[in-house]
Amino acid sequence: MSGTVWWQDDHLVLLDQTRLPFDVVELHCTSIECIAEAITSLRVRGAPAIGVAAAYGVAFGASIAASRAASGPQVVVEVEGICDRLAATRPTAVNLFWAIARLRGVLRALSDRQPAEIAAALLAEAQHLAAEDEDACRVMGELGWTLIEDGTSVLTHCNAGALATMGIGTATAPIVTAHRRGTRVHVYVDETRPLLQGARLTAWEFKRAGIPFTLITDSMAASIMRGGDVRAVFVGADRIAANGDVANKIGTYSVALAARAHDIPFYVVAPTSSVDSSTPTGEEITIEERAPDEVRCISGHRVVPDDYPVRNPAFDVTPAAYVTAIITEQGIVRGPYLASLASLDLRHTVPSREDGRTGGTVGAAVAEERS
Amino acid sequence: MSGTVWWQDDHLVLLDQTRLPFDVVELHCTSIECIAEAITSLRVRGAPAIGVAAAYGVAFGASIAASRAASGPQVVVEVEGICDRLAATRPTAVNLFWAIARLRGVLRALSDRQPAEIAAALLAEAQHLAAEDEDACRVMGELGWTLIEDGTSVLTHCNAGALATMGIGTATAPIVTAHRRGTRVHVYVDETRPLLQGARLTAWEFKRAGIPFTLITDSMAASIMRGGDVRAVFVGADRIAANGDVANKIGTYSVALAARAHDIPFYVVAPTSSVDSSTPTGEEITIEERAPDEVRCISGHRVVPDDYPVRNPAFDVTPAAYVTAIITEQGIVRGPYLASLASLDLRHTVPSREDGRTGGTVGAAVAEERS
Repeated sequence: MSGTVWWQDDHLVLLDQTRLPFDVVELHCTSIECIAEAITSLRVRGAPAIGVAAAYGVAFGASIAASRAASGPQVVVEVEGICDRLAATRPTAVNLFWAIARLRGVLRALSDRQPAEIAAALLAEAQHLAAEDEDACRVMGELGWTLIEDGTSVLTHCNAGALATMGIGTATAPIVTAHRRGTRVHVYVDETRPLLQGARLTAWEFKRAGIPFTLITDSMAASIMRGGDVRAVFVGADRIAANGDVANKIGTYSVALAARAHDIPFYVVAPTSSVDSSTPTGEEITIEERAPDEVRCISGHRVVPDDYPVRNPAFDVTPAAYVTAIITEQGIVRGPYLASLASLDLRHTVPSREDGRTGGTVGAAVAEERS
Repeated sequence: MSGTVWWQDDHLVLLDQTRLPFDVVELHCTSIECIAEAITSLRVRGAPAIGVAAAYGVAFGASIAASRAASGPQVVVEVEGICDRLAATRPTAVNLFWAIARLRGVLRALSDRQPAEIAAALLAEAQHLAAEDEDACRVMGELGWTLIEDGTSVLTHCNAGALATMGIGTATAPIVTAHRRGTRVHVYVDETRPLLQGARLTAWEFKRAGIPFTLITDSMAASIMRGGDVRAVFVGADRIAANGDVANKIGTYSVALAARAHDIPFYVVAPTSSVDSSTPTGEEITIEERAPDEVRCISGHRVVPDDYPVRNPAFDVTPAAYVTAIITEQGIVRGPYLASLASLDLRHTVPSREDGRTGGTVGAAVAEERS
């Protein structure tokens, strides 16, 4: 295993996160459908990891297309379709659209080149994107660990850890960095129903890293905070609107309310690729509603009959007013966020729903910049 | 099936709530250990139902003791031991101690009578207590349903329904009454991890009653409230301190915080037997910490390894300041609760931890009053 998403020889490999914590299974994707299914089914999840997986997916598709296409434009047509397919896998995390748009930009800029050259450029761009994410995690960890007091507890929700990124995670980056530097920190890990990413993934990561943690149900977080033990909350983000509203895993908003009630700082840790300056507020963020059986069943085990009505929004929106600070790889920003987020270099970000025209434009600009 | 707890011929019968919603299993208890285990293992749960089950348990123990004892004092000694055993099953719900103290009072007041007469009086007291609870539910329903606006949604946490009481429930009483009177009401039901009483029990009750509901994970409640759909929250109570602080199922406090953030009334529905005037504030309420595997496993299905550290408090405390009103069978009381709760007739209540001396004194007063 080499992380959560990686390129091996000529294809993409994923750690199948639906099998954790009991089975560590590598999924070798040798078709676009395999990659698309892996994203939709949460075999790979976490906003940054989804972005990188999709980028490698585009690169993989390009290599296949290049092997049989006679010309660059033929490759472009085929890869555009692959981009569309991968962009349709999940609606909320903006990193998916951002990554695809970046690769689309490279694709269009090189449309008159030889097929093999296009494929090589797309793979290089995907690898570049992965390296950027790893680096962003490292920097966010450096910035964030200064916010952790020695000998205290913090709380996190869902998994915004190494499994969700190419590096040491987003929300977990300050914690991991603190631990490595000798700052004693204990973490309360929300189990994160319905899919238990906290219990299955974050706890697994902390166990392996030797970071002390306590697993709790989501319903315990407020009461634990009232006990006075928790001194900071760190969560990730699937999308940050221009005004600082944060879409993240369902339950994040509840944690934010509890943090506010107990005067506990609530930090969002996310790379600038999660900032979507084209979405004015959280109201405009599309919230994915997933299958009702994710609620009716737990880890594949049915707990209520299949005719019980269910809601299953995968994300919620935490208003900017509840966010103490956003830790990005470009620095820590604080409210008012409309101004502070606008001061970041967001040239690489793309509109809320990646589409050919706008995404292409931004991506092309990126490609030009590097060429 | 005749409810959740009932006396049949010469013994206690329980609906085994750990088997719902898939299996409806009656548990016939023909030993004190069976009853004690049923309370500890949550086969019977819900503060009022636990109280009644314990009362029937004492009555059952007395009938066995009477069948072989030569004198009243011999019965008293044996039944005192049974009271101690049943009082040691769970620490938080005050109704358990209250019910046992009432039966202990009858026991001591009649210690010079014939064994059969003592046993008959204890059974009569247990049946009286059950009838009182049924009536209290009905009255709380009448009082509470006026707080529900036609065509709106409410939210509840855990199960404070018919399964938890001898009647139509506590938190569910206003909802059931509204439904029966033609007030259209839809209920969001928190699944209530770790033991899923909302998903397994409350949803099952609403399904049978034809009351529209939607099951959600606990982590969704705040976000659903932010959506503007929920117009009131109804929860039960395991113990209400003299100042109005409310101990109830873990997660209740989180719901209260979300209700406050969205200006949604947060109603606690509980009989006066749940009010513990001898406990000044929520700080003094003993919170039961249950087995860690209740968090590590879900419905018997292991979701994380058994060496992951876990917290598992079964209850939390919602400060009185978050409680819009407490609906009791004696009326709806509002803050400041120290005064409004003191104005209730709480002669039947007992100290926070039932013990021989004080519980006996109060119970004896009750017995005298009736004799």
